[in-house]
Amino acid sequence: MNAIDIINKTKKAITLTDDEIRWLVENYTNGEIPDYQMSAWLMAVRLNGLTEEETKSLTYAMRDSGEIIRLKAEGITADKHSTGGVGDKTTLIIGPIAAACGICVAKMSGRGLGHTGGTIDKLESISGFRTELPVDEFERILRKTGFAVISQSGELCPADKKMYDLRNATGTVDSIPLIAASIMSKKLAVNADCLVLDVKYGSGAFMKTRESAQQLADLMEKIGKGAEKRCKAEVTDMDSPLGLNIGNALEVAEAIEVLQGKVKGKLYDTSIQLAADMLQLAGKGSYEECVKMAVEAVDSGRALDVLRETIKLQGGDPSVCDDVSLLPVARCSYEVRAVQDMKIIRINCEEIGMTSLLLGAGRLCKGDPIDMTAGIIMHVGPGDSVSTGDTLMTLYSTLCSDFSDAAVRALNAIDFESVNCHKPLT
Amino acid sequence: MNAIDIINKTKKAITLTDDEIRWLVENYTNGEIPDYQMSAWLMAVRLNGLTEEETKSLTYAMRDSGEIIRLKAEGITADKHSTGGVGDKTTLIIGPIAAACGICVAKMSGRGLGHTGGTIDKLESISGFRTELPVDEFERILRKTGFAVISQSGELCPADKKMYDLRNATGTVDSIPLIAASIMSKKLAVNADCLVLDVKYGSGAFMKTRESAQQLADLMEKIGKGAEKRCKAEVTDMDSPLGLNIGNALEVAEAIEVLQGKVKGKLYDTSIQLAADMLQLAGKGSYEECVKMAVEAVDSGRALDVLRETIKLQGGDPSVCDDVSLLPVARCSYEVRAVQDMKIIRINCEEIGMTSLLLGAGRLCKGDPIDMTAGIIMHVGPGDSVSTGDTLMTLYSTLCSDFSDAAVRALNAIDFESVNCHKPLT
Repeated sequence: MNAIDIINKTKKAITLTDDEIRWLVENYTNGEIPDYQMSAWLMAVRLNGLTEEETKSLTYAMRDSGEIIRLKAEGITADKHSTGGVGDKTTLIIGPIAAACGICVAKMSGRGLGHTGGTIDKLESISGFRTELPVDEFERILRKTGFAVISQSGELCPADKKMYDLRNATGTVDSIPLIAASIMSKKLAVNADCLVLDVKYGSGAFMKTRESAQQLADLMEKIGKGAEKRCKAEVTDMDSPLGLNIGNALEVAEAIEVLQGKVKGKLYDTSIQLAADMLQLAGKGSYEECVKMAVEAVDSGRALDVLRETIKLQGGDPSVCDDVSLLPVARCSYEVRAVQDMKIIRINCEEIGMTSLLLGAGRLCKGDPIDMTAGIIMHVGPGDSVSTGDTLMTLYSTLCSDFSDAAVRALNAIDFESVNCHKPLT
Repeated sequence: MNAIDIINKTKKAITLTDDEIRWLVENYTNGEIPDYQMSAWLMAVRLNGLTEEETKSLTYAMRDSGEIIRLKAEGITADKHSTGGVGDKTTLIIGPIAAACGICVAKMSGRGLGHTGGTIDKLESISGFRTELPVDEFERILRKTGFAVISQSGELCPADKKMYDLRNATGTVDSIPLIAASIMSKKLAVNADCLVLDVKYGSGAFMKTRESAQQLADLMEKIGKGAEKRCKAEVTDMDSPLGLNIGNALEVAEAIEVLQGKVKGKLYDTSIQLAADMLQLAGKGSYEECVKMAVEAVDSGRALDVLRETIKLQGGDPSVCDDVSLLPVARCSYEVRAVQDMKIIRINCEEIGMTSLLLGAGRLCKGDPIDMTAGIIMHVGPGDSVSTGDTLMTLYSTLCSDFSDAAVRALNAIDFESVNCHKPLT
């Protein structure tokens, strides 16, 4: 086998064998195949696509490029993945709900990059919370509470890491088979029994249309099932931020408020839906029965009990579960107000995410420090009518001197119709 | 400007500007853009194509990446390029004919690689012939005879050299715009006033079909005219070798025999056609008048006089022009005979070229030594009927011990119909 023959086949849209794809991934990971051959192949994939079978072969070869987790957990394990959204704190809600219903949710999570946040960063806003745990401690917490979160190890899927960096530098990120293989290889290396996938679409998501998100969701579900996992992929919209809070400590606060039963709406509904999917995959009953179980886990306070116990065992301050004001608070805030009467049509999530990043809540480059207290609380949503001077959102940051850039960006994120602009002449 | 934006545009089939293409070529040549980005762009070009304007921009940027020749020559200069064929020694015939008709043919040529030979290698089979000349000596010979051949300098088109090596390693050779840009950038750097292009198609050529050869020919002609050159591209078939001799000294002998007026047929016809094209481009008259001039240059012996004088001035033994048996001769030969009665349908040029390479006449890798005396003389061609035991071709080599591999390969090159195989039962 040689790389040029493989490139030529994909270039001519001739299907590769499992052996060929495995050989390619192995030899790229170990450095035998140079970047310039891999990038040519990736561009051929971007333009000619891969078959479902090829995408499965690619995913499984990438999964097998590193360690595969084998947790000593009790009962059925479940995992959840979201393709990334602005204000998406559902993991912090679904994990405790599912754990309260008897499933083991062992979450390996990453840090945020760009305009979307990472679960690890969010949890680290809780004073004392440790995300870098030895595996045996992680397993012990899982056995006790059913929910634990650990920072993703570098030894999972080195092939994905290397290929992702190359794709980023060669215009080959936007390929559905490559996205599916990248996500699923990591999820399959984490190796839970059940896997719920939340594929976002809309202005704040990588997939801009419902159709492309559905295509990615279907493909990932097939890859998961092909690896003998119970797998369900939901498509959910990211046309406006999920919930009202964006930013690390602010999102933890909102997740706790959902588990306290204080916050309903789209964030609550989406969380219940995804938790029910997870329960159903784990064989806990019909979808309707699973929705009931999830709702009851919140209403009874048992889901919040799980989160409280997990925070305590991971070294954090559990009292935040009873009083979110104990979470760190930004030194400064700034109210973005309506400069005219208007009706809000749409909120551009990507712009809101970038505003949050400008305030210090996210990072542009890996390893950048972030401000746990920075972020945004939205006071309005699509469909709302506001008058001149009403607060649209509050910005939080330790960068007190200059909110103006962020405020301009935040205002730009709002698509609206002017109200009373064209008064009839009297 | 950045490489990822440029890759993304070509990936989405958005036309690049001249500035963008020039920036890409310059920064790839100087090492600012890494191979892995260039190979992704090249694959996007291979799959999405380039417009005619983009291909021109690419060619001119590649041309400008190195030195552009400015010869001190008298009168109109002309150059000729063939896309490579088996047994193609037309340069050695056309150059002297055109020079005999008053045109200055300054030929910068390469060495052969793979199954096609290079003009430089062929000429070096003449004892004493020097191809690495100082430019002023090259110009002096040109002024005297109108025809000189020099080994191609490394300073022309470094962008092409770097891109060609990368294309070779990434499955991106077979792209008509990239082939056109590669050939034309070098030809435009050589900078003759008139340019005749001979685009081969068929089993022995890179372009397998007449249609793709015509497409390449049209594109190259437009690129040449866009650079204000007088340019004509002919499409000629390479379904059987051009002439009867393949191999360095053997091809020089055949070219001399054409100029002696001893050999006619397809090689002679093609040479007259291309020489007439060159004369017409140089303004010597109508195509018919130019054909007459070319024929007369051969018949009068003036073309042979030019070659004799050029060989002498470049240090070679000019007496080979009067007696080809003075050219080096192989130590051993082997006759490949018909093993049954047959009618020859077709001769696979690529296989014949590979046979010649096996005998020692070509090189697989740059810098390999070659055997000047090795090669093949064909005794039959398409349409001929032969009987069992008739000689099909004679193989020549200094590798006397083992002709069997080459003989098998040579036989495989011949497509034939069996004759008398199905005798009626009597």
